[in-house]
Amino acid sequence: MPTPGQGGGGARSRRLGGWGFEGEGFPPSAELLAWLARRLGEPLGPFPSFDPARFRPPPARPLPEILAGSTDPLDRLAHARGQGLPDLLRLRAGTVPALPDAVLRPDDDGEVERLLRAAAREGVLVIPWGGGTSVTGGVNFLPGEAPAVSLDLERLSGLEALDETSGLATLGAGTPGPALEAALGASGGGRGFILGHFPQSWELSTLGGWAATRASGQESLGYGSIQELVAGLTLIAPAGRLELPAFPASAAGPDLRHLVLGSEGRLGVITRATVRVRPVPERMTVAGTLLPGWPEGLAACRELLQADVPLTLLRLSDEPETEVALAVGLGGRGGLVAPLVRGYLRLRGIHGSGCLLLAGAAGSPGAVDDTLERTAAVLQRHGGVSLGESPGRHWLADRFRHPYLRDALLDRGIATDTLETAAPWSRLPELAAGVRRALEEALAGDGEQVAVLCHLSHPYRDGASLYFTLFYRCPADPEAAVARWAAAKRAATGAIVRGGGTLSHHHGVGSWHAPWYEAEVGPQGRALVAAAAAAMDPAGVLNPHVLLDPADRLEA
Amino acid sequence: MPTPGQGGGGARSRRLGGWGFEGEGFPPSAELLAWLARRLGEPLGPFPSFDPARFRPPPARPLPEILAGSTDPLDRLAHARGQGLPDLLRLRAGTVPALPDAVLRPDDDGEVERLLRAAAREGVLVIPWGGGTSVTGGVNFLPGEAPAVSLDLERLSGLEALDETSGLATLGAGTPGPALEAALGASGGGRGFILGHFPQSWELSTLGGWAATRASGQESLGYGSIQELVAGLTLIAPAGRLELPAFPASAAGPDLRHLVLGSEGRLGVITRATVRVRPVPERMTVAGTLLPGWPEGLAACRELLQADVPLTLLRLSDEPETEVALAVGLGGRGGLVAPLVRGYLRLRGIHGSGCLLLAGAAGSPGAVDDTLERTAAVLQRHGGVSLGESPGRHWLADRFRHPYLRDALLDRGIATDTLETAAPWSRLPELAAGVRRALEEALAGDGEQVAVLCHLSHPYRDGASLYFTLFYRCPADPEAAVARWAAAKRAATGAIVRGGGTLSHHHGVGSWHAPWYEAEVGPQGRALVAAAAAAMDPAGVLNPHVLLDPADRLEA
Repeated sequence: MPTPGQGGGGARSRRLGGWGFEGEGFPPSAELLAWLARRLGEPLGPFPSFDPARFRPPPARPLPEILAGSTDPLDRLAHARGQGLPDLLRLRAGTVPALPDAVLRPDDDGEVERLLRAAAREGVLVIPWGGGTSVTGGVNFLPGEAPAVSLDLERLSGLEALDETSGLATLGAGTPGPALEAALGASGGGRGFILGHFPQSWELSTLGGWAATRASGQESLGYGSIQELVAGLTLIAPAGRLELPAFPASAAGPDLRHLVLGSEGRLGVITRATVRVRPVPERMTVAGTLLPGWPEGLAACRELLQADVPLTLLRLSDEPETEVALAVGLGGRGGLVAPLVRGYLRLRGIHGSGCLLLAGAAGSPGAVDDTLERTAAVLQRHGGVSLGESPGRHWLADRFRHPYLRDALLDRGIATDTLETAAPWSRLPELAAGVRRALEEALAGDGEQVAVLCHLSHPYRDGASLYFTLFYRCPADPEAAVARWAAAKRAATGAIVRGGGTLSHHHGVGSWHAPWYEAEVGPQGRALVAAAAAAMDPAGVLNPHVLLDPADRLEA
Repeated sequence: MPTPGQGGGGARSRRLGGWGFEGEGFPPSAELLAWLARRLGEPLGPFPSFDPARFRPPPARPLPEILAGSTDPLDRLAHARGQGLPDLLRLRAGTVPALPDAVLRPDDDGEVERLLRAAAREGVLVIPWGGGTSVTGGVNFLPGEAPAVSLDLERLSGLEALDETSGLATLGAGTPGPALEAALGASGGGRGFILGHFPQSWELSTLGGWAATRASGQESLGYGSIQELVAGLTLIAPAGRLELPAFPASAAGPDLRHLVLGSEGRLGVITRATVRVRPVPERMTVAGTLLPGWPEGLAACRELLQADVPLTLLRLSDEPETEVALAVGLGGRGGLVAPLVRGYLRLRGIHGSGCLLLAGAAGSPGAVDDTLERTAAVLQRHGGVSLGESPGRHWLADRFRHPYLRDALLDRGIATDTLETAAPWSRLPELAAGVRRALEEALAGDGEQVAVLCHLSHPYRDGASLYFTLFYRCPADPEAAVARWAAAKRAATGAIVRGGGTLSHHHGVGSWHAPWYEAEVGPQGRALVAAAAAAMDPAGVLNPHVLLDPADRLEA
C-alpha cells in the first residue's frame, strides 16, 4: 500500500515525452538487458529523446475570447497526447502532428458549463484532461480539424465532503491519486480513510479520469473497481448538467452512472464524484508463491475466487514473466530467487521457472493471517511453494515506478507496450495462447521477434483479466517505429476479439480500440452510445474520436 | 433456502384477482386481526372478490394478422394489470379500465423480432410480460389508446447453456424462479448450482422481469442483486437486437447492461440472460436476535456491513414490525416469543417489543458457524439477545406465502401495501421517520389511521434499503379504495424524495413512480433514457407509460 501522498503532489514537474516526473526513473538491470538481447537480438540503437530546442510548434489557431487559455507551446504539447507507446515515440521524436490550440483550466462547475456551451456554439472541439495517462489514444488531438482545446481539470481538485457514517467522500474530478489518498487519510479519526484505487498510473491519473475510463486499481479484488467505488457524480455537457446522487443501490430505472463511467469524455466532463471509502486497514501484506505451471496457477486462482477467499489482490505471472520477475529482476535489481533456492524448487516439482503468484490481504492482523492461511492451503493443493513476503514487498515498492522502465528501455532501442483483456475462466487458456501467438508472429514480416510476458490479474468468480507486456526492437525512425507498434497492436486486438475477450478490462477504448468497438457491442450498442452522446452534446464537440469513430487511428 | 422447484411449476393455475396460485393461501391469525382492529378500528366490511360471471370484457380491437394471439377474455384480463394494490382492487371489483387486445406468446427470438417490427410498423403498443408481479404499474394497459398487446414470454423458458468452469448459466427470460433454480440445481455434479435470487415474488416472477426492473432478492447481500448476477443478455427491439456478451468485467465503453437493467420494457424485450451461478451451499441458516431499539439495530447493521462480515441476509424490523412478527405472528401462527421469554428479555434490558434482526449465512458448516459467531459478537455489543434459529425458520418457511396474506386481509376489509427506498446510512433514521410520519398522517382527511411497519434490509457498506408495510381500512367502493391508496402512496413517495431516498430499491419506477423520476435523475438523466428509448424503439410502441411518462397514473 502506498503511503498517502507518496510520489505525488503538485511540486514536482511532469516530464515531457516520458512517464512521470523529472528526476525520477527506473533503469533496467543488466540482467534484464541481457535477457532481452537473448530474445530479440542486440538493439538497433537508441531512440531519440525529446529535445525542446528542436520543437517547432504549429501556431495556435485563434479562439473566441471566452475560450482563451494557455497558448504556451510546451503546455500545448504536454496536453497533445496520452502515454501510449506511439504517443511517446512521437513526443520524443518531435513528430506530434497536432496540438490543442489552448489549454483551459476551469475553476469550478460554472466555468466548465460556460466553456462547454461556448465550445458547442463556436464549433470548438474539447478534449477533457485528467492525468493524461491514456494508453488508448483517449486524449489525442488530430491534424486538420476544427480548433480544439484541452480542458485540464487540475483546479477541480480536493476533498469537498466526507460522510464518515456512510463511508462516502466527494472529491473534485481533477484530484490525482496521491492527493486523493492523502486527503482521505487525514480525515476521520484514527488511521483515516482510504479509497483503495491503485492503478499503475496512480501517481498521475485522477478520479475523473478513472471514472471516465472505468478503471480498475491493482487491489480492485478487495476495494472494488471504480465502477463499484463511484456512488454518485456530476457530469457537465453542452446540453446541461447530470447530477447522479449517491445511493447505496437503486432500482429507479437504468443505472445512469454506468453510462457515464466509461464514456471517455464523449458524454460530458465529470467534475466531481462521490466515492465509497473505508477506514485504512491496519495491515496489508502480499504473499508470494511459485506454482508449477500456468494451468495449475489458473486452477488455483479460480478456486480461490470461487471459494470467496477475501483477498485484495491476486496476480499470476506466466513462465516468461516469472522468469523476468524472479530470475533477472524486472527492473533495477537482480533475481529474487537465488540458485540455491532453485535446487529446492526442483525437489518440490518446479523444474522450469514456474509461475509466480502474488496474493494480497488487508485488514486486522488476525483477518490477514486467516486469509493468507486459507490461500496457502488452496495453493499447496495445486503444488505451490511459498516464497514468503519478499517478492510482494519488492513488487509493492516498485509498482508505480515500472512505467519509468519503458522510457529507459526506449533510450536503449527497446520498445515496450502493454495491453489487456478479460474473459470467463473457460476461455482464458485459449485466449492467452492466442494473443501470445498473434504477438509473437506480429513482426515476422520485419524479421523481428516479440518477447511476450503475461499475467492474470483482477480475477472474479466468473473470469479474470489477462495483461500482456511486449518487447521488441524499436527502429530509430519514428514513422517506422509507430508502424511496428501498430502492427503488433492490430494483431493482438484481433486475437482478443477472435478469442472471446473484451476489448479492454481497464485501459478503455479510446480512439485506438474504437475500430473494434462495434464487434463487441454490436450496431445497436453503438447506436445507444451515439444516442446518449447526441443527447448530451448535440454539436459533437466533445472528444469526438473515442469510442464511436471507427477510423483506424493507430498511426495518427 | 427454498427447495428447488418448490411452489412453482406450470401445473398449478394462477389466481385471477389475487396473488399466486388457486388453492393456496395464507389467512391472518386471530391475533393479527385483533392487533389491526386495535390500531385501525373494526374493518368497514369485506372488499368484493373477483366474480367471473360479472366480468364484462371490452371487445378486443382488431389487430393485423401478424399480431394475432389469444383473445380469450380471461387471458386478456389476466395480462391487464400487475400485482399492485390498486390492480387487485380493480381486478376484484371488475373495474379494470383497459385490457390488451391480444396476448402473444412468441416461441423464439426470431418471432419476438417479427412481432416487434410489425407492432412498430402498425402502431400497436406492446407491453412485455414476465410474471406480471409489478407493484408499480409496470405492465398496466390504459384506456383510450392505440391497440395494444401483452407479450407473454412464458415460452422463452429454461436452461440454454451452462459453463460450469466459469459459473455462468444462460436461461430464457421467461423462466420463473422455481423452474430456474430447479434447472440449475439439477445441473453440474454434487448439489448442483444456484442463482440465489429470491425476491418475495419468486414463485411467479421471471429472470427477464428481474432484469428489466433491476430486482434484488432477499439474499442479495450474499448472492448479489440482479445487476450483479446478470453478466450478459439479449435485448430485442424494433430497431434491432442488442447482444451483450458475458464478460467478468470490461472497460470497453459504458456498461450497456446497466442501461438494459431497469429499462422496464421501454428499450426492448429481454429474451435471455447469462447469469452468475455458484454451487449450492452446504448449509443456510438464519439466526434471530432481539435488539433493544431501532438506533441500536441500525448501528449494529452498519457495523456488520462495514466489517465485511460475509452474511447472505440481514433484516432489522422496527418496533411495530417486531411486535407484529414476534408477539402476534405475522400470518397464520401466533406469537413466536412466549410471555415467559418476555420476562427474561426485560431482565436483559429490552422493555418494549425490541427490534427483531434476522441474519443469514450460507456455505460450509464451518464458514456458517464462523460468520454467525462474528455476527453475534457485534450484536451483543449493541445489546442484542439471541432468539436462536426459530424466528428465521418460520420466516424462511413463510416468506413466499406472505403476499397471499394481502388477499386474505382484503377479504376482511383491510388494505395492505408495501413500498421501499434506499439511502446512505447517515440519512436512514430521518428518512424512516419521515416516511412513517407521512404515511401515518396520509389518511387523516378521511379520519382514518394507517398502521406502518418498517424494516431495514439489503444493506451495503454505505447504506441500506428501508421497506414499509402499511395497513388501513379499505372502503368497499373500488374508486374510493383506489383513491385512499393513491393518497397514501403520494404522501410516502413525496416523503422519500424529500428525505433523500431513491424512488425504489427493488420495485422499480413503473408508471406510478414516473412522475417523480425526474426529481431523482434530473432533466438530463431523463433525456438520456429517452434518447436510448428512441434509438431502440423510434415509434415508441414499447411500454410507453413507464419511466418517462410524467402523468400521475395512480388512479388510472
